[in-house]
Amino acid sequence: MPDIDYSTYLRLHEVLGAQHPVSPLHGVEAHDEMLFIVTHQVYELWFKQIIYELDSVLEVLQRDSIDDNTGDMGIIVQRVNRMAAIWRLLGRQIDILETMSPLDFLEFRNFLMPASGFQSVQFKLIEAKAGLRVASRYGGEYYKHMGHGGVSETDHAHITAAETRPTIKTLLRAWLERMPYLMKKLWTSDLTPRRFLTAYRRAYLASLNNLEDRETRRDEFSRIFVRDGHGDFTPAAMRSALFIMLYRDYPVFQLPYQFLVALLEFDEQLSIWRYRHLMMLSRMIGLRVGTGGVNREGKNKDSYLEGALKSNRLFAELADLSTYLIERRMLPQIPVGVLRELGFAHS
Amino acid sequence: MPDIDYSTYLRLHEVLGAQHPVSPLHGVEAHDEMLFIVTHQVYELWFKQIIYELDSVLEVLQRDSIDDNTGDMGIIVQRVNRMAAIWRLLGRQIDILETMSPLDFLEFRNFLMPASGFQSVQFKLIEAKAGLRVASRYGGEYYKHMGHGGVSETDHAHITAAETRPTIKTLLRAWLERMPYLMKKLWTSDLTPRRFLTAYRRAYLASLNNLEDRETRRDEFSRIFVRDGHGDFTPAAMRSALFIMLYRDYPVFQLPYQFLVALLEFDEQLSIWRYRHLMMLSRMIGLRVGTGGVNREGKNKDSYLEGALKSNRLFAELADLSTYLIERRMLPQIPVGVLRELGFAHS
Amino acid sequence: MPDIDYSTYLRLHEVLGAQHPVSPLHGVEAHDEMLFIVTHQVYELWFKQIIYELDSVLEVLQRDSIDDNTGDMGIIVQRVNRMAAIWRLLGRQIDILETMSPLDFLEFRNFLMPASGFQSVQFKLIEAKAGLRVASRYGGEYYKHMGHGGVSETDHAHITAAETRPTIKTLLRAWLERMPYLMKKLWTSDLTPRRFLTAYRRAYLASLNNLEDRETRRDEFSRIFVRDGHGDFTPAAMRSALFIMLYRDYPVFQLPYQFLVALLEFDEQLSIWRYRHLMMLSRMIGLRVGTGGVNREGKNKDSYLEGALKSNRLFAELADLSTYLIERRMLPQIPVGVLRELGFAHS
Amino acid sequence: MPDIDYSTYLRLHEVLGAQHPVSPLHGVEAHDEMLFIVTHQVYELWFKQIIYELDSVLEVLQRDSIDDNTGDMGIIVQRVNRMAAIWRLLGRQIDILETMSPLDFLEFRNFLMPASGFQSVQFKLIEAKAGLRVASRYGGEYYKHMGHGGVSETDHAHITAAETRPTIKTLLRAWLERMPYLMKKLWTSDLTPRRFLTAYRRAYLASLNNLEDRETRRDEFSRIFVRDGHGDFTPAAMRSALFIMLYRDYPVFQLPYQFLVALLEFDEQLSIWRYRHLMMLSRMIGLRVGTGGVNREGKNKDSYLEGALKSNRLFAELADLSTYLIERRMLPQIPVGVLRELGFAHS
Repeated sequence: MPDIDYSTYLRLHEVLGAQHPVSPLHGVEAHDEMLFIVTHQVYELWFKQIIYELDSVLEVLQRDSIDDNTGDMGIIVQRVNRMAAIWRLLGRQIDILETMSPLDFLEFRNFLMPASGFQSVQFKLIEAKAGLRVASRYGGEYYKHMGHGGVSETDHAHITAAETRPTIKTLLRAWLERMPYLMKKLWTSDLTPRRFLTAYRRAYLASLNNLEDRETRRDEFSRIFVRDGHGDFTPAAMRSALFIMLYRDYPVFQLPYQFLVALLEFDEQLSIWRYRHLMMLSRMIGLRVGTGGVNREGKNKDSYLEGALKSNRLFAELADLSTYLIERRMLPQIPVGVLRELGFAHS
Repeated sequence: MPDIDYSTYLRLHEVLGAQHPVSPLHGVEAHDEMLFIVTHQVYELWFKQIIYELDSVLEVLQRDSIDDNTGDMGIIVQRVNRMAAIWRLLGRQIDILETMSPLDFLEFRNFLMPASGFQSVQFKLIEAKAGLRVASRYGGEYYKHMGHGGVSETDHAHITAAETRPTIKTLLRAWLERMPYLMKKLWTSDLTPRRFLTAYRRAYLASLNNLEDRETRRDEFSRIFVRDGHGDFTPAAMRSALFIMLYRDYPVFQLPYQFLVALLEFDEQLSIWRYRHLMMLSRMIGLRVGTGGVNREGKNKDSYLEGALKSNRLFAELADLSTYLIERRMLPQIPVGVLRELGFAHS
Repeated sequence: MPDIDYSTYLRLHEVLGAQHPVSPLHGVEAHDEMLFIVTHQVYELWFKQIIYELDSVLEVLQRDSIDDNTGDMGIIVQRVNRMAAIWRLLGRQIDILETMSPLDFLEFRNFLMPASGFQSVQFKLIEAKAGLRVASRYGGEYYKHMGHGGVSETDHAHITAAETRPTIKTLLRAWLERMPYLMKKLWTSDLTPRRFLTAYRRAYLASLNNLEDRETRRDEFSRIFVRDGHGDFTPAAMRSALFIMLYRDYPVFQLPYQFLVALLEFDEQLSIWRYRHLMMLSRMIGLRVGTGGVNREGKNKDSYLEGALKSNRLFAELADLSTYLIERRMLPQIPVGVLRELGFAHS
Repeated sequence: MPDIDYSTYLRLHEVLGAQHPVSPLHGVEAHDEMLFIVTHQVYELWFKQIIYELDSVLEVLQRDSIDDNTGDMGIIVQRVNRMAAIWRLLGRQIDILETMSPLDFLEFRNFLMPASGFQSVQFKLIEAKAGLRVASRYGGEYYKHMGHGGVSETDHAHITAAETRPTIKTLLRAWLERMPYLMKKLWTSDLTPRRFLTAYRRAYLASLNNLEDRETRRDEFSRIFVRDGHGDFTPAAMRSALFIMLYRDYPVFQLPYQFLVALLEFDEQLSIWRYRHLMMLSRMIGLRVGTGGVNREGKNKDSYLEGALKSNRLFAELADLSTYLIERRMLPQIPVGVLRELGFAHS
């Protein structure tokens, strides 16, 4: 193979040749349009990287079982953390765009209509692959409307297809459901998983402070962990997730715990980015109508971003688990056999 | 004066001797309570610094006039930017608290009841001194309730007193109102401030895109800049603020423009901190009731923090100005005499 | 127990009453002295937290053995990561101090002489407890000199005592040395640890590119992993650390690997803080003499901070391990018995 | 003009089609090569933006005079601050690359040889356009060597050409030199600029503390501000820069002061990025030889990055000014005529 050089390897000719401001076509020299273009191209490069990592995590999660004795779970944790780190960086990137003043933006803003960040297919694919379901989204199907300023037909098909395939969330649920530690065979006839759960609920209700309504909490607990589940999760999935949270100190759960925390971090950093993006837009265009629609007061159909901020949490079910934790010292007994399964061979 | 040394100067004996976890009093060793205490003490130290800067800015703004030929305006800008930088740091400080897991927090959380961050008097003083009015607050008077987990009588009096004194916002309004550049005497009989405004409104309406309703915008414009003003600002204050935004390139407006931008930055960083604080709490305690009240779904009376995030913007009026900007090249003419006033002596 | 409230719990009376600028004593009103005091008090609060975490990690590491089947290793990783997060925040805190201009600092700088950050005992304790040995330090014993602007006799004794006790680094070395996976008894008579190392070295030398000198690398490898060790680490400790890096995907090594990475992160964030601190000082006082001594050009005895930046790395031995890694696919064979020890019971 | 859409406008087809890992060509699947490519493409996009801003600042500074009564100086300040903000973000971007472990990097590192970041032409252009002179660089001409792993002939010519054209630094010097405020005609026969400087030096020497050698400082002062100048700056340029620092509170100097501070910020953020980049590389490849050459111990010819960190400061002369500041209350008198020139027309 011939010697490789930096600029050929990175295709700098293509990447650095792709900035084409439109303001000169309108006879206007809007200096900051370049910043606008570069910033959004950088966004899209990082989105590509996030999709690449999501796909690799999906691939591992899709296997029939994840062998704890390989590096699979470690790899998943590393990659979800990497995606969270990228979102964190994207949040800070908003500092750069804010060096452009509203008046500077106005110089070229109208030339871009009706294009808008709303049309970023990669962003929608990220949401879809992570597991945001249409039914949970703010505005329902609106986010892939194909009208003026909307997505193209091809993109619409592409996003819809991603929604039908397994997502991080559906695969996470399946993985939680098939987790063996709360299955009967590991427990004893005296100490069944069901009895454990009853004892746990009792300890939980005893831990409530007097501002909290015991009855409501009891019903909620039964609904979530026994009858109906929570959000997109079945009761079995919720029970396993709770079990991981409580026994994270045991070897077998250390990486699964880190996986759940990494997903929460991903979700939180994405939300912070959404919030900062919204703040920035409100400062930049005030109450003007963007194509995607932005409105600080959230009073009309246009306030898509604000609605999405509130509704489009990806793993709220996991965050809500904190509601049902109890102190380690109050944990009910579990069988020795189960404890042994949670540990290393060599002990 | 005797030689001074680092530790005496900084009163480290007092500062580093003020961490007293309560979990040992309950026979529990909750390692992370120390982190909880230190984090909140650091918050309060920075709050003290913010109040110190707010007071100094209030003092300058309270003078009958701010002499543009002194360093006064430069000092104000520097200090508001400093406060914004502190809020930015506080936002990042949440990363530290998030190294504590919900289960670690649970080890001592109940021992702290009913104490809560809701009782931080300094935080409420910051809001009051910056200019958040009771009427604009989420939950009205609730933020200084004196019941269980509320503020003390002394603190209540202290906060209420701060609310009756001039605030950054009221002094900003007064400063904008007395700004001379839109006063008749500098203009000519042909080119009056009123005619300028009419011409400006015409240019503004012409700049709207076809998703925006011209009639609504026209009424809104007249209401804000002529008849009623906007939020806490009179029409005269709104007009001056708009004028500064538009003519910020002229020497006289460079620091005033930076002042307005610094206030927006302060407001934005405080909002981001509120948002991150809310995220962190929701991850930490889920849907459990905090004394101040936190609820991810925002459906009951407890969701104080979430309501405050939405309502307690300090300078939304300034952010909204972006709605009414027009491109520099469309600006109507202004008299030579006014332009001269905006410049330096030496030209 | 009586109801607890926020301000009593946090001893705000003491913490917020400990700011006493000295400039008024000299008849000068130096506004920014408050920022200087608060910033340094916040530093010291975080230093206290770091020492608290270091002590807790030392306690765990000091046990005869760390049981992999408890949460001990998870706790260590969490706490070292927390300390790294604190250093990261302290690096960013420099943004705040930089809102003070050199001229503003000059208003009170001379009143503080000869006090200086050089006198922070907590900072020196952190270095000592982490494991920076006197012999490795820039300037040898200079960092605890007791002359003008130096540390007090009590502090000197305090720091010296910490240096004689076990440190993170000495305990890390001991933990690496007693790690069983490279001990003969787990291996076979055909496949001994020694043969593994020889095969590894061969693969390593084969991986060098043609800019690297094979002879030098071979000697270096033997010196570090067989004969002498590296820095403060014995050959046995270096071998175990290398083994962890290479087989981190196996369950038993996942947390140990995270531990090593967390230490590197701690070291790196502390270095970045040192660097930013040095930059800030050079901008603030130029080439003026500080008590601790700062000199951008590093040419005289005063350049303590610059020397420390270069020399006072804590875990350079671990960073240097990257030199000796080879690609996963080139790893020599290890016995099935060893592999089994690296895994979970349940497989 | 036809409707524009997001993806066409941003040329996403080209930008997102430019990632071509080489590890598959070697039959290896190195997952993290994608991250490596994307990270470096993002670097180069931001470098393009920095060059774009540098060019626009150069254009303004190249005019015969900068009219204080236009927005020119405000624009320069905004753009230099923007470049500093980009460097700050690039420093944080290193967090992302550090989610790749040394072992992960090793999977594809050898396939890239001899390509390296050393070959980034844009980075060298930034240094050249900002004003880093060959003579001040670490390693002299080495940074544009054309051998193995070096720059191409075309690139060499391109960089050399940039070095011969006016740079931010040479234009800054010229702008400082032609600044009128220290020119005789504005002063009186009793109070000449020379007398002012003598009085200033007296006040400066009186302000030294007793660790500083008066004789050395006096000579240095005369050398820098009267006889030889400092670094790339003439005595006249140094005097003007000092004058701006001291009288920054006057209207005419507010933006020039911000300009100098922005340049220092640019320089500092670039240095922090260099430092973090060096840390990251040392963690990633240890003491292995990179093409550009990296060596933590800085003992051989390869330690280019470490040498550059120390030597390649861009505006050290401005940072050094802090050495010669005196307290505002000690400033010698200046004529009323000069003071008037520093103010606004309207006073």
